[in-house]
Amino acid sequence: MRMTRLHAPTLKEVPKDAEVVSHQMLVRGGYIRKLAAGVYDFLPLSMRVLRKIEDIIRQELDAAGAQEVLLPMVQPAEIWQESGRWSHYGPELLRMKDRKGAEFCLGPTHEEVMVELVRRDVRSWRNLPLCLYQIQDKFRDEIRPRAGLMRGREFIMKDAYSFDTDEAGALKSYDAMYAAYERIFKRCGLEFRAVEADTGAIGGSRSHEFQVLADSGEDAIVSCEACNYAANVEQAELLAGETQSGPASAPCEAVSTPSQRTIEEISAFLKLPADRFIKTLIVQADGKLYCALVRGDHELNEIKLRKLIGADDLTLADEGSVQKVTGAPVGFAGPVGLNGVEIIADNALRGSRDFATGANRGDTHFVHVDEGRDWNATRFADIRMAVEGDTCPHCGKKLRSFKGIEVGHVFFLGTKYSNPMHCVFLDEEANERPMVMGCYGIGVTRVMSAAIEQNHDDDGICWPKAIAPYHVAVLPLQMNKPEVVAAAEKIAADLEALGVEVLLDDREERAGSKFKDADLIGCPLQVVVGGRALAAGELEVKKRATGEKLAVSVEHAAEELQALLAKL
Amino acid sequence: MRMTRLHAPTLKEVPKDAEVVSHQMLVRGGYIRKLAAGVYDFLPLSMRVLRKIEDIIRQELDAAGAQEVLLPMVQPAEIWQESGRWSHYGPELLRMKDRKGAEFCLGPTHEEVMVELVRRDVRSWRNLPLCLYQIQDKFRDEIRPRAGLMRGREFIMKDAYSFDTDEAGALKSYDAMYAAYERIFKRCGLEFRAVEADTGAIGGSRSHEFQVLADSGEDAIVSCEACNYAANVEQAELLAGETQSGPASAPCEAVSTPSQRTIEEISAFLKLPADRFIKTLIVQADGKLYCALVRGDHELNEIKLRKLIGADDLTLADEGSVQKVTGAPVGFAGPVGLNGVEIIADNALRGSRDFATGANRGDTHFVHVDEGRDWNATRFADIRMAVEGDTCPHCGKKLRSFKGIEVGHVFFLGTKYSNPMHCVFLDEEANERPMVMGCYGIGVTRVMSAAIEQNHDDDGICWPKAIAPYHVAVLPLQMNKPEVVAAAEKIAADLEALGVEVLLDDREERAGSKFKDADLIGCPLQVVVGGRALAAGELEVKKRATGEKLAVSVEHAAEELQALLAKL
Repeated sequence: MRMTRLHAPTLKEVPKDAEVVSHQMLVRGGYIRKLAAGVYDFLPLSMRVLRKIEDIIRQELDAAGAQEVLLPMVQPAEIWQESGRWSHYGPELLRMKDRKGAEFCLGPTHEEVMVELVRRDVRSWRNLPLCLYQIQDKFRDEIRPRAGLMRGREFIMKDAYSFDTDEAGALKSYDAMYAAYERIFKRCGLEFRAVEADTGAIGGSRSHEFQVLADSGEDAIVSCEACNYAANVEQAELLAGETQSGPASAPCEAVSTPSQRTIEEISAFLKLPADRFIKTLIVQADGKLYCALVRGDHELNEIKLRKLIGADDLTLADEGSVQKVTGAPVGFAGPVGLNGVEIIADNALRGSRDFATGANRGDTHFVHVDEGRDWNATRFADIRMAVEGDTCPHCGKKLRSFKGIEVGHVFFLGTKYSNPMHCVFLDEEANERPMVMGCYGIGVTRVMSAAIEQNHDDDGICWPKAIAPYHVAVLPLQMNKPEVVAAAEKIAADLEALGVEVLLDDREERAGSKFKDADLIGCPLQVVVGGRALAAGELEVKKRATGEKLAVSVEHAAEELQALLAKL
Repeated sequence: MRMTRLHAPTLKEVPKDAEVVSHQMLVRGGYIRKLAAGVYDFLPLSMRVLRKIEDIIRQELDAAGAQEVLLPMVQPAEIWQESGRWSHYGPELLRMKDRKGAEFCLGPTHEEVMVELVRRDVRSWRNLPLCLYQIQDKFRDEIRPRAGLMRGREFIMKDAYSFDTDEAGALKSYDAMYAAYERIFKRCGLEFRAVEADTGAIGGSRSHEFQVLADSGEDAIVSCEACNYAANVEQAELLAGETQSGPASAPCEAVSTPSQRTIEEISAFLKLPADRFIKTLIVQADGKLYCALVRGDHELNEIKLRKLIGADDLTLADEGSVQKVTGAPVGFAGPVGLNGVEIIADNALRGSRDFATGANRGDTHFVHVDEGRDWNATRFADIRMAVEGDTCPHCGKKLRSFKGIEVGHVFFLGTKYSNPMHCVFLDEEANERPMVMGCYGIGVTRVMSAAIEQNHDDDGICWPKAIAPYHVAVLPLQMNKPEVVAAAEKIAADLEALGVEVLLDDREERAGSKFKDADLIGCPLQVVVGGRALAAGELEVKKRATGEKLAVSVEHAAEELQALLAKL
């Protein structure tokens, strides 16, 4: 492809509304344009990237026995009412009425439509298992679309749904999809972790998120340095560990701490490290108040606590409730002398000695606080977020922490949809039973963004080879020199004859602009064709990702570039 | 692919709501399912057909220099207000509000979004011409969705838009797309005509519809038996022809024709053929009344008449107006003695002798009516629809009439959108000028339906090879005979190794069901694997389209089938 023919309008300026790197580079590189908040045009360069991602997905899902379908974007309200989500989904579900007044929505996901399709035609165990997928536009009316394609409103998603006769079968389908996802993201050239994720209100037994590792990721994950274990920090199980023990500290003592409310403030004020504090949180779970304790440098994991208590709903208590329980303003709660409320303490506080905590009195803290002497927990449990250095629950080695971007999710659904929507089959004994389902998503447009977040430098994108829009950028430096133009055209033609995809920058631009745009667009290899190099018989090649520079002979440029590419 | 794994639920019954053959067969063959009126699920078999059509389209458009993009389905009202279509498009445009109250619509077509994309980034004549296309879901809220995919609400369309510096360039782009369309439909294996079409209110100089010929088509077209000329009957130009002449007939005479209003009624009553009548129509054009005359066996072409008059709007006059002009109830109008209104007569009535027509009096007609003696036209012109046997305006040979299904449309837009939306560029003298546009559509899902309307028999679909979901159906007749199963598996594997796409019917069904489903699904070749045939060393092959039966050797079945396929 020639740059003069390609519609890839590159920009020098960073667009004002683009905060994250992938958004900036996709706009500057001429890959996307914004039509409305969270709604984007995909230009020719991004189409090539998306097609490559989609092709990898199709190949791996087909190989795993899934079949491609295409379901409508416009979906009737009736099936959403059947599943109960018409009333539960909230304002992210964009609803509308057609000219006859019938209610519809734009599909943010397709469980209902898929169940409607399968329950109509599949009646026997003989037709199961079945796994259907589609690659399709979705719409979610996000309240604050942001980060370009990372959280857009209209986006491309691959969604798959499996239907099995029983849970064992469904878990087999789940594992097959999990394995396909691993192959997909590996083939895309991405560094990722499959992490255990919260199963939320569904309460199924399995859920994994596929997280692309990137410093800009919104999700905090931990991954074992030794084994395969990885989990969202909210989900990571932490071992009870050994009970701390040591000599009893000096007697508990009240100190004046005027207006020092947060751990940071009080830690600085008392000149004690954060891990010597007890952080005390009053929470409300299904209408009842609890006191939760974690170490000052740890974070309470509300999901773990909610599950521990067995509550449907858990939030931090409001100011009034905190005052009622502790008798003190917010910021001065502590377990010493606290009555009338269950105290649930994190395992890390077991046997803690010489800690500091709020004194349940305004502007006052206790120091020299010992567990067992000054306070007792109703129970100890794992109720905090994992952090770097925690112990791997599988192998006992250390956990490392990462930031991740969720690009895929596999989810065991069980009968959450097949029960209310009566998606049933007859088993071998002719008994009617609900199908057991799984659902499996990949954010196709988000994969493109995440690949950039993980693979870029200050100058632009460094595409993994498998999803690069073109493999080699050919940069003729002097368009007014016929021998330069001819050599560049020949290299491009020779490369294309070898099946290598080439972007030939045949614009009448100065060398600096061509280098800048080539770095920005991010093809894995760049080859520079200039008059002097031609005369010397050697051309300069740059590997985009590393910046490493090499030489190829003019005579065998195409073959040598192809060989370099094969080794990337 | 094995039938036991494929989600292709075939049905014996014709679905009640399916009137046209393609709709019936797509549902019965397990290709599609209806989710809501005009909204369909595409199952694995139809996905394969659609992908093949899309691939052919992509290859030909890319070869013609167009570039693929993907634009949003959800479009902001603002750009539709700019083009003026927010108020003009009518209720087919499905409108909605997002959670913040901003107005959007679902794209029924993408001129506005495309212009918005191009005007933002293209500023110089150097970046033109530019042709961008997408293959994408559209939504049109049809008042009466019907005929399955032929007139659905949500459907897949390829839409392309060209941008040029001037009309000459735009017409060159138009011709390139026209040529690409010819290649696309030819490669799809369809018999079609590119017909001249009405340019409607835009009034551009060129518009062609690509019509797939099929008896069930809604569009009437004429095509020359000798040259390339083809046109919609509404659009076909008709030569003035020679003035009829003959001896004057007997004096004009009034006859009583109680309650005989239509040409059919009066023709039967007077025992005169329809082509001896003058059909008289009172029309209203931009508020003024006219009298239009065509021969009894011809149809008035309102488009031609509207253009002739130079009116924006033309309709048949209401009953009151007809009575006012003719002094008689509807059904008895005629040109004899008609005053106070312009009389426009079709060329075919020039010199007509001994005709019959209404007498402008209730229950009365005139016979022995001669043009020039008994009535005079204000003017003669071509104001009728073409019919079989008319003269080709290009070569003078005869026109034949066909029914067609419109699957594509190429349209010269001029500056219809670039003017109101200010889509401009700077020419070589730095003058700002509007881009000159063309737009080009193909109904991808409609191509699939039209292919069936053209290629089927009573038993099912007869796919053209290029767009068949699979090339060969392999039908093992006795699944309980291991040698039959093994032979069928081997043929399927051998064919697949040769790149032939195979549907292996490995279901435990009786032979009759397998034959029926194979005919219904419509792969171009069927090969029957039975115990006796295996023993005899020869297998029966059926060509689906012709029913022709052939034999292939068991030993070289795959190679011989491949050779047969190559000759289809």
